[in-house]
Amino acid sequence: MSNYAIILAAGKGTRMKSDLPKVLHKVSGISMLEHVFRSVSALNPAQTVTIVGHQSEMVEEVLAGQTNFALQKEQLGTGHAVRMAEEVLGNLEGQTLVIAGDTPLITGESLKSLVDFHINHKNVATILTAEADNPFGYGRVVRNADGEVLKIVEQKDASDFEQQIKEINTGTYVFDNRRLFEALKEITTDNAQGEYYLTDVIGIFRQAGEKVGAYMLRNFEESLGVNDRYALSIAENVMRNRINKGHMLNGVTFQNPATTSIDIDVEIAGDVELEGQVTLRGKTKLETGVYVSAGSYLQDSHIGANSRITHSMIEESTIGQNVTVGPYAHIRPDSSLADEVHVGNFVEVKGSCLGAGTKAGHLTYIGNSEVGQNVNFGAGTITVNYDGQSKYGTTIGDGVFIGSNSTLVAPLTIGDHALLAAGSTITSDVPEDGLALGRSRQVNKDGYAVRFPHHPARKEN
Amino acid sequence: MSNYAIILAAGKGTRMKSDLPKVLHKVSGISMLEHVFRSVSALNPAQTVTIVGHQSEMVEEVLAGQTNFALQKEQLGTGHAVRMAEEVLGNLEGQTLVIAGDTPLITGESLKSLVDFHINHKNVATILTAEADNPFGYGRVVRNADGEVLKIVEQKDASDFEQQIKEINTGTYVFDNRRLFEALKEITTDNAQGEYYLTDVIGIFRQAGEKVGAYMLRNFEESLGVNDRYALSIAENVMRNRINKGHMLNGVTFQNPATTSIDIDVEIAGDVELEGQVTLRGKTKLETGVYVSAGSYLQDSHIGANSRITHSMIEESTIGQNVTVGPYAHIRPDSSLADEVHVGNFVEVKGSCLGAGTKAGHLTYIGNSEVGQNVNFGAGTITVNYDGQSKYGTTIGDGVFIGSNSTLVAPLTIGDHALLAAGSTITSDVPEDGLALGRSRQVNKDGYAVRFPHHPARKEN
Amino acid sequence: MSNYAIILAAGKGTRMKSDLPKVLHKVSGISMLEHVFRSVSALNPAQTVTIVGHQSEMVEEVLAGQTNFALQKEQLGTGHAVRMAEEVLGNLEGQTLVIAGDTPLITGESLKSLVDFHINHKNVATILTAEADNPFGYGRVVRNADGEVLKIVEQKDASDFEQQIKEINTGTYVFDNRRLFEALKEITTDNAQGEYYLTDVIGIFRQAGEKVGAYMLRNFEESLGVNDRYALSIAENVMRNRINKGHMLNGVTFQNPATTSIDIDVEIAGDVELEGQVTLRGKTKLETGVYVSAGSYLQDSHIGANSRITHSMIEESTIGQNVTVGPYAHIRPDSSLADEVHVGNFVEVKGSCLGAGTKAGHLTYIGNSEVGQNVNFGAGTITVNYDGQSKYGTTIGDGVFIGSNSTLVAPLTIGDHALLAAGSTITSDVPEDGLALGRSRQVNKDGYAVRFPHHPARKEN
Repeated sequence: MSNYAIILAAGKGTRMKSDLPKVLHKVSGISMLEHVFRSVSALNPAQTVTIVGHQSEMVEEVLAGQTNFALQKEQLGTGHAVRMAEEVLGNLEGQTLVIAGDTPLITGESLKSLVDFHINHKNVATILTAEADNPFGYGRVVRNADGEVLKIVEQKDASDFEQQIKEINTGTYVFDNRRLFEALKEITTDNAQGEYYLTDVIGIFRQAGEKVGAYMLRNFEESLGVNDRYALSIAENVMRNRINKGHMLNGVTFQNPATTSIDIDVEIAGDVELEGQVTLRGKTKLETGVYVSAGSYLQDSHIGANSRITHSMIEESTIGQNVTVGPYAHIRPDSSLADEVHVGNFVEVKGSCLGAGTKAGHLTYIGNSEVGQNVNFGAGTITVNYDGQSKYGTTIGDGVFIGSNSTLVAPLTIGDHALLAAGSTITSDVPEDGLALGRSRQVNKDGYAVRFPHHPARKEN
Repeated sequence: MSNYAIILAAGKGTRMKSDLPKVLHKVSGISMLEHVFRSVSALNPAQTVTIVGHQSEMVEEVLAGQTNFALQKEQLGTGHAVRMAEEVLGNLEGQTLVIAGDTPLITGESLKSLVDFHINHKNVATILTAEADNPFGYGRVVRNADGEVLKIVEQKDASDFEQQIKEINTGTYVFDNRRLFEALKEITTDNAQGEYYLTDVIGIFRQAGEKVGAYMLRNFEESLGVNDRYALSIAENVMRNRINKGHMLNGVTFQNPATTSIDIDVEIAGDVELEGQVTLRGKTKLETGVYVSAGSYLQDSHIGANSRITHSMIEESTIGQNVTVGPYAHIRPDSSLADEVHVGNFVEVKGSCLGAGTKAGHLTYIGNSEVGQNVNFGAGTITVNYDGQSKYGTTIGDGVFIGSNSTLVAPLTIGDHALLAAGSTITSDVPEDGLALGRSRQVNKDGYAVRFPHHPARKEN
Repeated sequence: MSNYAIILAAGKGTRMKSDLPKVLHKVSGISMLEHVFRSVSALNPAQTVTIVGHQSEMVEEVLAGQTNFALQKEQLGTGHAVRMAEEVLGNLEGQTLVIAGDTPLITGESLKSLVDFHINHKNVATILTAEADNPFGYGRVVRNADGEVLKIVEQKDASDFEQQIKEINTGTYVFDNRRLFEALKEITTDNAQGEYYLTDVIGIFRQAGEKVGAYMLRNFEESLGVNDRYALSIAENVMRNRINKGHMLNGVTFQNPATTSIDIDVEIAGDVELEGQVTLRGKTKLETGVYVSAGSYLQDSHIGANSRITHSMIEESTIGQNVTVGPYAHIRPDSSLADEVHVGNFVEVKGSCLGAGTKAGHLTYIGNSEVGQNVNFGAGTITVNYDGQSKYGTTIGDGVFIGSNSTLVAPLTIGDHALLAAGSTITSDVPEDGLALGRSRQVNKDGYAVRFPHHPARKEN
């Protein structure tokens, strides 16, 4: 029998105090909704329906093409929300997971165990539960002696005895799909909130003599539902620990994991070492032997084996093997650094390719440039790629030696092994093996320094 | 009846091992004494007396004009310290809070509850207590069956039974003001330490048949007294969590709150997002939609709506809306960046105003400059504002285009839309629409590069 | 009687998933093996034998000259490993500590207490134990009513009763040296793993009627054995807390110790203040009154009293008193900054000495230079020390004023109080009091700017 899934993502999330819909707030680099969708995908559902409402267009954009959407125009309760999926799922045979889009920590493994349990026990409904050290405020799960669920009792309705129950409802369920939609037709708004409660179907099943079960999560923290940004930070913390522990068990050294933030899709090979205060974003991938020091920030970049990144920012770029970057370097998007390149402090590389063995050690800006192998950029080199309207490229051959404090005005081509004298402004091409000078000859005026403000002779006056 | 307050701030705090008086050590940006003073202020006390002793001048400077001070020349115990307030408070009717200056975590709400409890129960004295998981080392509060306090027993004097008591004395009290000073006349130094103990007044009240109560803090952590820098770090940690949680519940996203340090007076609007490793100091204020990335450090600065600060330091400056700063930028005091400004990597702005839309993307120093709108600073631009003795200003008009690696020697005025050629040294004013050049023409010497050390022909020799 | 020690360091540590032998993974700056060796040294052992096997050469290099080594060619169990020490220790009288090289948190104090206990109780063997909240998976220590150890039971062999025991074997032992090697001759591989178990000697001693005791660690966390990198991160966290707390109690302020990483050999004087996100490596030493702000990284450097380091990296250098460095400065190896020096943002100093009072505020590279006192480096100054093959030095006298954006081509000597004009390229020496210029005179072309792309007149076309 097929699995189906309904993801509830229609709410505003008032306590988030945000212009962004609640389920789009991010945890470890992707939205809570995407976390839930990924976990749901572990069930290989034949159909998934995401119930949208508040700012539905923004929400739909995130999962476009991956799920059906059903619009809940008015928010009349969870039972009403689930009913919106009837058009897609109503007549299908199988079991349907219902899960809230704000529970980013529930794993696919847990959902699979839940569905297996549901099927094995031939339940009409199975509630995902967890054991809370402090269950105050949660709906309690009341079971009979056989372990079957009799009802879910909300905090305010719980007897003294029921308040002692530590097994709580996580808000995730599996239902027999047809029975779910049949039962939903019977629920009413005859309650304090005037809403359609999804949990009312439990009573309907029980009255019909059908079997309702509960499967308890091994780990309470998976059950966290995010209603405000404090809970969001707790979810991020749990996810951080989970991601980091996974990398550590795979052979990555973390000097201070609590200060190391790694997005969920980052890939890290073995024998990589990360100091504390490192941030790895997006689809970043680190090959074996990479060392990343404190203060580094890598976004959607690939770092080759045995390269060393020291307190630098690298964005959407490709770094070869045995490369050293930093400290205080900035590699901007669409750059590539070949093997053995060195980019040092206060150097920016933007939209440029640097050939193998090239070095730019200090205070340099390399923009829109194709640079050959074994080029040496003197300190203070600037490629001038912008005239106020357009960007121009610079091409630098192999083995070129660029003197310090040079200014290279693009468009420009420098031939192999050419030499640019320090302090020069270069405005036209330089041929292979050519020497280019564009600076004035030094003149010394003996004794003239005494006339200037810095001189003690002058200062004493 | 009026409230009064006595803050004990005379101690040296030997275990702090510091030249600074203990109560002046800071927690989340302000001294412990100021934290206590702010909490005390919630009571609207008619008179406050701060008891000073060790390095009294430094201590008085911190609260100058906000409280009375009384000097305790010799430190003869807490009872003696409180007696120093008699000249100011001795004859007044009302209730007096006595609190130590090293308890920065007690909130104003707790102090108000304490005083309300004291008044409602018609006590002559009320002790602020807390329940300790591990009470070893604390003074225990011994109550009778009616909940009245019989005595406070120190650890070393506690019976086996008393050692089981988990309710501990926090060292904060409310007294009937007149009865306090009457009782203080009766206490002696007839004890092991040879000191006047404030707690001895409890026994005097009990013997007189007067009612002594205790009000228990909901939260033990508020009771922390700081005696060494390890405790100071715990206080800072509690305060950090408290401050950060408050901002989160107000709609600010924290990616890693444990690594985010925000001084107590910082203001943050909703829908601001902070990555981990962010430090916000002093009176910094962030408007809505601001994004601050890892490694940023903002001191006493105002950041306009939707601006994005990436790994940069900003001090005592004003940043407009939709501004982008960083990474690795440094905005020094007395700068202002208008809307839509971009300041990029390795750029320093000091004591300068940048008009709307102006861009300084790379490796630039802008000092003592008035810069118009839509100016473009080429990479490597330096304003020369210092001659070894004095600082001079630079004025740059709207739409000026400054070529890369230019040197602008102040005092200097550049007219609107002027163009400074890359690599120029500019020493005199440039009129509106003027083109200024100050560089040598390039000369190429064909084949000459083979003579220089970088060339493989030479290296092979 | 003498103490001896055997350190087990032969294992590969498969779960580390590393090319590095397990015991060489570092915790707070030194390898686990060195931590263990330092703790062992507290016993003043007459002989120490380190058992090596996997990658023995790398392991031996770390402790070369400090211990005997014995090679365990095949890894046939802990009993077999210890037997490798027989050649060195077999006939000696005294007691022998056996400890694993992957337990970096056991302190020298604990080992001394263990040995004292062993001697005082006249035991033939004493097991170091700890009380685990969750003992599952550990070997349990079964004692008789007198407190003597009957046996150690592994998890899989433990009865229901034994599984309730919370006292676990840490894997560290003291033995009577001669009896140890006698008993080792009797143990066999007749067990499930087919290995020689060291713990089998306990049964041999018991059968011989000899006394086996157990000494319990006060602090469970000391017992941590590191088998994967998750455990390694826990060990680093415990060590970080221990190191940081020690400094705090000595009078150092930590604003956020959980984010502050300090290697074990760093020395810090009183009244130093560290913001969060600070990394102190190697043999770094901070004198009194130093302030280190967030983002700073100091490696093997000495910082003089009252200096202030702001978000900077300093490597293998010496910094004087009242020096200010940063933000975003990089002091590279073999540099020294005399008192009152200021090095500001985007400044690199490499292999250079700066005299007292010298200032390099912005965007400067100082390499291989000897700089006098009270020199002023204008923004954008570059010393050119490399010609593609060799490095050359620059000597700058006292009181020299270097104009901004100057290029100093080494080898070069600048006399006292000389003035280099802003924007100059300096290729030859400048005498004392000399003025050197190497730049072109500015030319203004009125109205020419309208022809260029940045100009609105042009853009409108």
